[in-house]
Amino acid sequence: MKRAYNFNAGPSALPLEVLLKAQEELVNFQDTGMSVMELSHRSKDYEAVHNEAQSLLKQLLQIPDNYEVLFIQGGASLQFSMIPMNFLAEGQIGNYVLTGAWSEKAIKEAKILGRATSIAASAKETNYDRIPKLSELNVAPEDGYLHITSNNTIFGTQWKEFPTVKDNMLIADMSSDILSKPLPINNFAMIYAGAQKNLGPSGITVVIIRKDLLERSHDQVPSVLRYDTFSKNNSLYNTPPTFAIYMLRNVLQWVTDQGGVEAIAKLNEDKAALIYNAIDESNGFYKGHAQNDSRSLMNITFNLSSDELSKKFLQEAKDAGFVGLNGHRSVGGCRASTYNAVPFEACEALRNFMIKFQKANA
Amino acid sequence: MKRAYNFNAGPSALPLEVLLKAQEELVNFQDTGMSVMELSHRSKDYEAVHNEAQSLLKQLLQIPDNYEVLFIQGGASLQFSMIPMNFLAEGQIGNYVLTGAWSEKAIKEAKILGRATSIAASAKETNYDRIPKLSELNVAPEDGYLHITSNNTIFGTQWKEFPTVKDNMLIADMSSDILSKPLPINNFAMIYAGAQKNLGPSGITVVIIRKDLLERSHDQVPSVLRYDTFSKNNSLYNTPPTFAIYMLRNVLQWVTDQGGVEAIAKLNEDKAALIYNAIDESNGFYKGHAQNDSRSLMNITFNLSSDELSKKFLQEAKDAGFVGLNGHRSVGGCRASTYNAVPFEACEALRNFMIKFQKANA
Ligand SMILES: Cc1ncc(COP(=O)(O)O)c(C=O)c1O
Ligand SMILES: Cc1ncc(COP(=O)(O)O)c(C=O)c1O
Ligand SMILES: [Mg+2]
Ligand SMILES: [Mg+2]
Ligand SMILES: [Mg+2]
Ligand SMILES: [Mg+2]
Repeated sequence: MKRAYNFNAGPSALPLEVLLKAQEELVNFQDTGMSVMELSHRSKDYEAVHNEAQSLLKQLLQIPDNYEVLFIQGGASLQFSMIPMNFLAEGQIGNYVLTGAWSEKAIKEAKILGRATSIAASAKETNYDRIPKLSELNVAPEDGYLHITSNNTIFGTQWKEFPTVKDNMLIADMSSDILSKPLPINNFAMIYAGAQKNLGPSGITVVIIRKDLLERSHDQVPSVLRYDTFSKNNSLYNTPPTFAIYMLRNVLQWVTDQGGVEAIAKLNEDKAALIYNAIDESNGFYKGHAQNDSRSLMNITFNLSSDELSKKFLQEAKDAGFVGLNGHRSVGGCRASTYNAVPFEACEALRNFMIKFQKANA
Repeated sequence: MKRAYNFNAGPSALPLEVLLKAQEELVNFQDTGMSVMELSHRSKDYEAVHNEAQSLLKQLLQIPDNYEVLFIQGGASLQFSMIPMNFLAEGQIGNYVLTGAWSEKAIKEAKILGRATSIAASAKETNYDRIPKLSELNVAPEDGYLHITSNNTIFGTQWKEFPTVKDNMLIADMSSDILSKPLPINNFAMIYAGAQKNLGPSGITVVIIRKDLLERSHDQVPSVLRYDTFSKNNSLYNTPPTFAIYMLRNVLQWVTDQGGVEAIAKLNEDKAALIYNAIDESNGFYKGHAQNDSRSLMNITFNLSSDELSKKFLQEAKDAGFVGLNGHRSVGGCRASTYNAVPFEACEALRNFMIKFQKANA
């Protein structure tokens, strides 16, 4: 079997080792005579997997004891609503840094709920090609929180350092770069991420939350939309997506086996460098979308000189076995998502393909 | 490999054929060189699976064209909140039939949201051992809907016929008996079910909704908590739990291969009869919880004459390879969940074990 060169933006590539392990024990999990999917979520066998997923993540990101790891369904998109629902009391303002479509969606949900919002900074003017500088951010004492998107999956931009705000009420959507590098967890009140890029399959969202936040929810928030419900019940208030959490556990084990986030970060830099170099050394044949100091190591966005040429590039890349190189529907062009599980060899193959295509079409 | 006799209440047994198929193609889905989990949810390959799951369910339950099938995360528990959020306008009342813990939780969420509620009937007085008669139901023109739990998973009771209410505004939580028998879909405005009993693994909830309901949502309902968002985007507004939906598709294909819901219903009757007969012919050694005309064909609840004897029964059953026979934490005793995927042979084995245990302990 030949593995595809999978550059999907999410759901995306998973480590082959993780898939093979899941395959091996799919019908008979640890000699239980059952699939992990057939276990009760109240059984010891399942709970061990569930708890191990939490403790592996805590180890990998060195999460201090005053934080908890929660597993929630609904995707990162549900977090856009749960955050203002749980954290914005009367008179408090949800303050957002706009770096693309995801932060726009996040602030939109706060508005739908009738909450007050403000914009700390926006990069919209230049078609979201950069992350605002820390000195540009407008923050105020009335802010209930400052919300950022640590990596914009669509435009290919990524925060390199993080702001320090009052009470560290910084909340980050890290859906597309969590676990790609070490993190200063103490800067954050909450970090959340849909699993389907760096953590596992879709269907499970990981929330890292500082314990003092758990007391904030209003009485009118539905039980399964309150963070404290998940905390009080170890994310087992209702049936969790057990197989997705099992896969998450296995991916976290794999990252640990690779040497942890430092080792992964180094590899991610090398992988991204292959492709950014192909862009930078192309004499303008390939044009990166993001400004250099805002470039994402997870999503590499670029264009060719014309729409026709981009189309030709994407078609030939597809024929050559590359998957997922089309830019997001909303922006077009090309995008290579080089998440943790994308092998170095796949990035090398893409770099080589880009050089070959340029030679043939320059 | 020996398969366990899996009587879990959910997550529960899956058809062996479905697990074997998933195992076979786990690493390489239809020669894509990727796992189904690694496919983009916007890809043709994934969308075919997604759409097939919908159309198989429509065929199996003969769902008319004025209904849609939606896939939502969050479990049946999130539906407890989405229903009043989306459907109860000012002055409208959510009317609930209480048949156990799940309907209690459903009405509780309507109250948390500050909506008006009423109780159409309750079986609480007799420890939820029966389904109220249709003639007992208090319904009123002000009702936004009447909500029922078609099968109570914990107490082992099941509705045998359904009420006809104004505008057919009947909403049913069918988490634990959907697809176990044919259904008069036209009686219902909405049917919902967490997949983890009869439909697949946990992490996906199926909603069958009449199209006219899609226009009801208020403006202040968050995007991913509005049914119309799912409808307008074919349940692809945000990333769906793709693997869970793939498994759902495979389970629906399996039910079709078994001869559809009529054939499954006949088999379910035979399976349940084995165990109910063991209870009824035990001269009171085993005592069923549910009144005879309310007995569930999915969850068979019973007690032995003392807690000690129940305990001994459960321990010896466990040693003999039976899984999941403990009653729900909240009620104790014994429960055998005989969902669609539980083989006839497992029920036979349990019947035989019950008879043997009685002989040894009567
Ligand atoms: C940064 C970011 N936030 C949020 C989302 C939405 O996630 P979900 O589809 O799980 O709701 C995405 C999806 O790609 C994303 O990249
Ligand atoms: C009838 C019924 N409704 C609702 C639920 C809750 O489902 P979930 O855990 O998916 O939220 C269950 C779970 O067992 C159930 O049996
Ligand atoms: Mg998701
Ligand atoms: Mg953004
Ligand atoms: Mg669930
Ligand atoms: Mg109930």
